[in-house]
Amino acid sequence: MLAVMKRIFIASRGNPEHLASLFRAQLPDHDVLVEQPDPQGPAVPYIVVGRPLPGVIAAVPGLELVLSLNAGVEHLLASGEVPDHLPIVRLVDEGLAEGMAEWVMAHVLGWHRNLRHYEAIQPAAQWQPKPEKLARERIVTVLGSGALGAPVVQHLLAFGFKTRVWSRSGRPVAGAESFAGRERLIEAVSGADILINLLPLTTETADILDASVFSAMAPGSFLINGARGGHVVDADLIAALDQGQLSGAALDVFRTEPLPPESPFWSDRRILVSPHVAAPTHLDMAVAEMAGNIRRFERTEPIPHLVDRQRGY
Amino acid sequence: MLAVMKRIFIASRGNPEHLASLFRAQLPDHDVLVEQPDPQGPAVPYIVVGRPLPGVIAAVPGLELVLSLNAGVEHLLASGEVPDHLPIVRLVDEGLAEGMAEWVMAHVLGWHRNLRHYEAIQPAAQWQPKPEKLARERIVTVLGSGALGAPVVQHLLAFGFKTRVWSRSGRPVAGAESFAGRERLIEAVSGADILINLLPLTTETADILDASVFSAMAPGSFLINGARGGHVVDADLIAALDQGQLSGAALDVFRTEPLPPESPFWSDRRILVSPHVAAPTHLDMAVAEMAGNIRRFERTEPIPHLVDRQRGY
Ligand SMILES: NC(=O)c1ccc[n+]([C@@H]2O[C@H](COP(=O)([O-])OP(=O)(O)OC[C@H]3O[C@@H](n4cnc5c(N)ncnc54)[C@H](OP(=O)(O)O)[C@@H]3O)[C@@H](O)[C@H]2O)c1
Ligand SMILES: NC(=O)c1ccc[n+]([C@@H]2O[C@H](COP(=O)([O-])OP(=O)(O)OC[C@H]3O[C@@H](n4cnc5c(N)ncnc54)[C@H](OP(=O)(O)O)[C@@H]3O)[C@@H](O)[C@H]2O)c1
Repeated sequence: MLAVMKRIFIASRGNPEHLASLFRAQLPDHDVLVEQPDPQGPAVPYIVVGRPLPGVIAAVPGLELVLSLNAGVEHLLASGEVPDHLPIVRLVDEGLAEGMAEWVMAHVLGWHRNLRHYEAIQPAAQWQPKPEKLARERIVTVLGSGALGAPVVQHLLAFGFKTRVWSRSGRPVAGAESFAGRERLIEAVSGADILINLLPLTTETADILDASVFSAMAPGSFLINGARGGHVVDADLIAALDQGQLSGAALDVFRTEPLPPESPFWSDRRILVSPHVAAPTHLDMAVAEMAGNIRRFERTEPIPHLVDRQRGY
Repeated sequence: MLAVMKRIFIASRGNPEHLASLFRAQLPDHDVLVEQPDPQGPAVPYIVVGRPLPGVIAAVPGLELVLSLNAGVEHLLASGEVPDHLPIVRLVDEGLAEGMAEWVMAHVLGWHRNLRHYEAIQPAAQWQPKPEKLARERIVTVLGSGALGAPVVQHLLAFGFKTRVWSRSGRPVAGAESFAGRERLIEAVSGADILINLLPLTTETADILDASVFSAMAPGSFLINGARGGHVVDADLIAALDQGQLSGAALDVFRTEPLPPESPFWSDRRILVSPHVAAPTHLDMAVAEMAGNIRRFERTEPIPHLVDRQRGY
């Protein structure tokens, strides 16, 4: 008797064929489709999707699991395209957390050790050492200690930074100071030399990086945003830079992406713009992760990184 | 009966009074001098010295231990001022190793994640992500895994870099590939994306970073020198940059320091010059370390970081 192959629909807008070929290599016992399946046809239990086009998800027959192509699912949730009963798995592959830690720590250490200062004064050809602080003399606050935040916290601790972690649960992290809940946010960022944002974008975290946060930080401090542009109140950021309250910011994410040419960020030398490259998806690792989740689902094993619709992440 | 206080002579050229006050706080049961002691007077078993002025060390009566104010002792040894029978302790305080690891990793991660590239194209206001590699896809070779090199190796491994270590003994390091001896140098640097130099300057290591090393590395690779300027053949470095064999170099140390204004390094945008600030001495930690070594000496306990005159470090 021939077992019926379970079907996977790749609803990605960009290069679904390439994704499909990677899925076929990982799951040769599955049938991988790139065209919208017949709503009256056989069941398609899995859909792989980034930002869904209207009606696409609803038309898939017998859907059981939604596999997000992104780590942040705010667009998927806000689209209203995913029926309430369907579980959503976020994409968190190994490479994602590694890439984010590399990018964040590059900015942490570069600012901490004055690399841009020395580069700026180099053309003057003058030997001008300035007093250098040690990591152990700096306070760094990390907002969010999930899949991306937790490894960053470990690297900060390994360098000896005085590390604070702010999250919803306030789960303790050995060696760091933990803070939970909105009412402890200002305390968590108070006097911080560096603030790292790795929160998901939800109704609770939107616009969280505002004047009240910036003014609680140490004068001349530094912001690193690797999460979402919607976390930052842009006007408050510019004001904090103008006041010298912040000395700079590294931003990988923006309210509108691609960042429009008319954005004042581009020409602002205090701001380091990168084009959403902090933690790029590595397709091979991502597909291996998603294929593993399909296998777990079929063996009714627990799936990591299931989205909690209530919390919004 | 009153015990005679053991004497310490601070022969530092810069601010000996400040150093003396720190020593007095650490060792209140010792007599700390800042003036050359009477050669016919009571014994002065300890001298604290950076680059000795001629005759100063020889004139100290009853000297038993030389405490170097530097981690690198090539000047002290080359001066010929330290009689052969006297043990020399290098300065290795906690802050030194921490500072070096911060500085090296700032350059490793900054180059690896293309921070200068994105900064350079930012004024064009164009959203141009380029493919980003993960640390696990890069080969990094560290020359020297002593007090300063070993912590760098640990950070590299924590980020997932493919890490190689080259040293005299070839002592194995878990997770890294170890290489020993001159005859394996080219093998150790072959195909490396990043080369980090943390060797002491000795007759064996002088001029070690030459064309043969640069041409064995990966095309477009990066050099980080935190050790000594005398390790680098400057003309070979410039040639390797001109050929594109190296894409850049971060240099904290130079053959002549301060780096003279006429050095071509200053105006070379491929080279990042810093004024010997990678691992600055933190006087409080340094004095605590030296005071601890004096105590160990008096209790006839083993002293870490004793210089081996034969090896030259
Ligand atoms: N720039 C890029 O290339 C890139 C790439 C991938 C992802 N991202 C962004 O990074 C975000 C974080 O990803 P992740 O995988 O680390 O998410 P995650 O594993 O879900 O972790 C989220 C963290 O934020 C905390 N948090 C959530 N809501 C909170 C609230 N209201 N108050 C306080 N803390 C709150 C959570 O607290 P608990 O621990 O208590 O749950 C958790 O520690 C994603 O949502 C995405 O937007 C950016
Ligand atoms: N830029 C700055 O701010 C700064 C500050 C402090 C120091 N430094 C420089 O950093 C250097 C290293 O300091 P450290 O405290 O790490 O020295 P260390 O503890 O003595 O370690 C030296 C390392 O180099 C290896 N080595 C020595 N000679 C070698 C040879 N001929 N071939 C192969 N390997 C060799 C040693 O091998 P084994 O392990 O087999 O012995 C050891 O791993 C100092 O000498 C100084 O010049 C720079």
